[in-house]
Amino acid sequence: MGPIQIKQILSEANVGSEVVVKGWVRTKRESKNAIFIALNDGSTIHNIQAVAEPGQINEETLKLITTGSCLKVTGNLVESVGSGQAVEVKLTDVLVYGTADPDVYPLQPKKHSLEFLREIAHLRPRTNTFSAILRIRHALAFAVHKYYNDNGFYYLHTPIITASDAEGAGEMFRVTTLDLNKLPRTDEGNIDFKEDFFGRETNLTVSGQLEGELGAMALSKIYTFGPTFRAENSNTTRHLAEFWMIEPEMAFFELEDNMNLAEDFVKYVIRYALENCADDLNFLQKRLEEEEKSKPQNERSLPLLEKLHFVVENAFERITYTEAIDILMKSKPFKEKKFQYEVAWGVDLQSEHERFLVEKHFKKPVILTNYPRAIKSFYMKQNEQTANEPGPTVRAMDVLFPGIGEIIGGSQREENYDKLITRMHEVGIEPESMWWFLETRKFGTAPHSGFGLGFERLILFVTGMTNIRDVIPFPRTPKSAEF
Amino acid sequence: MGPIQIKQILSEANVGSEVVVKGWVRTKRESKNAIFIALNDGSTIHNIQAVAEPGQINEETLKLITTGSCLKVTGNLVESVGSGQAVEVKLTDVLVYGTADPDVYPLQPKKHSLEFLREIAHLRPRTNTFSAILRIRHALAFAVHKYYNDNGFYYLHTPIITASDAEGAGEMFRVTTLDLNKLPRTDEGNIDFKEDFFGRETNLTVSGQLEGELGAMALSKIYTFGPTFRAENSNTTRHLAEFWMIEPEMAFFELEDNMNLAEDFVKYVIRYALENCADDLNFLQKRLEEEEKSKPQNERSLPLLEKLHFVVENAFERITYTEAIDILMKSKPFKEKKFQYEVAWGVDLQSEHERFLVEKHFKKPVILTNYPRAIKSFYMKQNEQTANEPGPTVRAMDVLFPGIGEIIGGSQREENYDKLITRMHEVGIEPESMWWFLETRKFGTAPHSGFGLGFERLILFVTGMTNIRDVIPFPRTPKSAEF
Repeated sequence: MGPIQIKQILSEANVGSEVVVKGWVRTKRESKNAIFIALNDGSTIHNIQAVAEPGQINEETLKLITTGSCLKVTGNLVESVGSGQAVEVKLTDVLVYGTADPDVYPLQPKKHSLEFLREIAHLRPRTNTFSAILRIRHALAFAVHKYYNDNGFYYLHTPIITASDAEGAGEMFRVTTLDLNKLPRTDEGNIDFKEDFFGRETNLTVSGQLEGELGAMALSKIYTFGPTFRAENSNTTRHLAEFWMIEPEMAFFELEDNMNLAEDFVKYVIRYALENCADDLNFLQKRLEEEEKSKPQNERSLPLLEKLHFVVENAFERITYTEAIDILMKSKPFKEKKFQYEVAWGVDLQSEHERFLVEKHFKKPVILTNYPRAIKSFYMKQNEQTANEPGPTVRAMDVLFPGIGEIIGGSQREENYDKLITRMHEVGIEPESMWWFLETRKFGTAPHSGFGLGFERLILFVTGMTNIRDVIPFPRTPKSAEF
Repeated sequence: MGPIQIKQILSEANVGSEVVVKGWVRTKRESKNAIFIALNDGSTIHNIQAVAEPGQINEETLKLITTGSCLKVTGNLVESVGSGQAVEVKLTDVLVYGTADPDVYPLQPKKHSLEFLREIAHLRPRTNTFSAILRIRHALAFAVHKYYNDNGFYYLHTPIITASDAEGAGEMFRVTTLDLNKLPRTDEGNIDFKEDFFGRETNLTVSGQLEGELGAMALSKIYTFGPTFRAENSNTTRHLAEFWMIEPEMAFFELEDNMNLAEDFVKYVIRYALENCADDLNFLQKRLEEEEKSKPQNERSLPLLEKLHFVVENAFERITYTEAIDILMKSKPFKEKKFQYEVAWGVDLQSEHERFLVEKHFKKPVILTNYPRAIKSFYMKQNEQTANEPGPTVRAMDVLFPGIGEIIGGSQREENYDKLITRMHEVGIEPESMWWFLETRKFGTAPHSGFGLGFERLILFVTGMTNIRDVIPFPRTPKSAEF
């Protein structure tokens, strides 16, 4: 079905066969004895080289064969005499599907900055870097589905448009069909949302967790994998207004099971990438080395593949928040007053603290658990307070990764109806607005847990890229929704 | 990780082993000699039966064990003496995680209407019908990813929030962070969308196709699988405001390849469901038979499995629009003036016409191609007009399914820059607003094709359900965004 892809031609290396290759020209090189055309179709990082004899392609056609033009090349697959490839195509015929005027085509064969490529996000998948990232993104997404499918989870499509706010906070995008120039008003002069499409105020979801819990309390193990939204005006390398999240929810899982799942899951998908994206990862490793050449040795990252293998092969460190505070207060940067933010039991850990724990102290991924109740969401299961804890804690868990920070956030959920209601009142959430969520605690409640993984943060980690806008095809950020 | 699931216990049937079963009570039955508790955990349609001796469970606890309550049952797996199950659990211990007061728990063991269950969408996954549908939905989603992954496609996450309108029509949901009570105004008194989050007007996507084409023109074969939105005020059994769509786009595919892919793909995912969801499909087949008992014989559907096998095992009929009009004009209902809507070359086919072709004339799925240009989208590839066609046509294809109508819509895309621009002007689309889309035709253009499959329509077909609100966990329809 459809043409054979370059990936397949190169891997089968069926020397002697006739092949028809369709792809885009990466480079054309003419020597005295031959014309070399490097073709790529995006199926692999590798080009296939087509070789023609001088004069074999008529001059008019030859002029049209420039970087970015699209060709159909017919020829015979032969062993390559040159270095750099095992096989090449001895061209017998060529058809130009589409040209790419070198005077205006922006992707000439030279180094382009990532900033420039973001402005041409419609073309950047034609570059080695972005096609590699997108292929890895695909492999990771498939690994996510495969992992959960193989482990008895059901994929639940939680709603995108919602009237609830899972985090009890969150700056959200409004969804409306009201005519902004003729807003309907109630008798009191307020905007009449009864007239809106859904008969009420609606927003884009910030998380599928609440609906995910409904699924888990019926199907036992579910996961979501869908877009989520934050209308935060943060222009950082770590934030997107629209991003993809994976959220498993499991009945009968306690915090320990939740940690085991998170660790096993994230190792599985990274291992999957290592096994299925070797060529692309090698390319990105070289790219990163190139990028960091100008940095002093001690500021350079671990080689990409080494970093990934390290994560897959070593147990994550598991400590409580209380233990983390202890470690931080005994640390050199704390004693030397090098931390910018306060360290004390009860405060939320800042990036500098997380980085110290992960990158300096343990030198591996860390799962932090049992945070102070006051700094975590209302739906997290409350612990009995122990002697060494200055205040009440909840069964939260954050998985912290080197260079990334929090990659997973989750918890055991509070399954006790009364405790949940009390907590909602304390933090100012109307229980009535979430009657359906509360009913899972009223009817057949059970211990259950779940977590969320930001998909783009995972891709950042696996690809070694540093700006989140470079690991999603068409980033949505403040003042930017092009394409 | 986590408890063993009932599905696994039943399939392994490891008689003699000790098991711990966690699940929700479907029914409790007390006889003189024993207490029978049917437990379900959503992993399978089948319950596991726990059996206790009279008096073994203390009276207080026994009272709490009612339909909907959640239990942890410990016991020994033994061969069942009763009929209906091969193994059962001889109970040694029971813990009630959560009760479900029979006076208020809505899911008592009796028949509930689908309408009633829609009102408690947070609980309906605990019913046999909805858990079966959701498991099949999962299996179909996984089959989609597996099919494309195995066939060299890359999953592309196209944006949900967009400033463009893929269909050139479409009632769309606005996405905004503007304060509706204090809308910023320009000097001319218009709403100043420069102040909005993205600095321009944005909507929820109606299709990922345009961005999908960008991906295909770099990676060759991509697919999307994500939520799409229509703000149409249609309260029908076929429409949702929020639904999931699968959209493959392939460089170098012509219309014929596109048809081959569509047919192969849809057969694959249905076959996957047949092979992986036998128990759930059997249950839904019986449910459908039960539902249709009151109907006269000739109005009843084919048995569900028979229908699915038929589609998988027979070639789809492929005809042009022009041929379809011919068939319709020679048909009995046309001659007897039984069609409500006009039949003439150039008109859009109505549901009654499609149903006649699929259900009466060919009695199988039909792929209709080469529609009049005037009734199709601007981006479809224009045909040379042939002698038997009264007007210009485009390389569109619609796949029509019995009982469903259009399940797939697609086309070869117009790859010629000038023709595309001319067509955009004709239908009133500003080419400048889609500069990035047009650049794929300006730089290295190539023949390419794609289609869209409405995921919920596929699930309707596979499950035999008739209302689209019953095949998505939390339906979004006019005036309804609960949960």
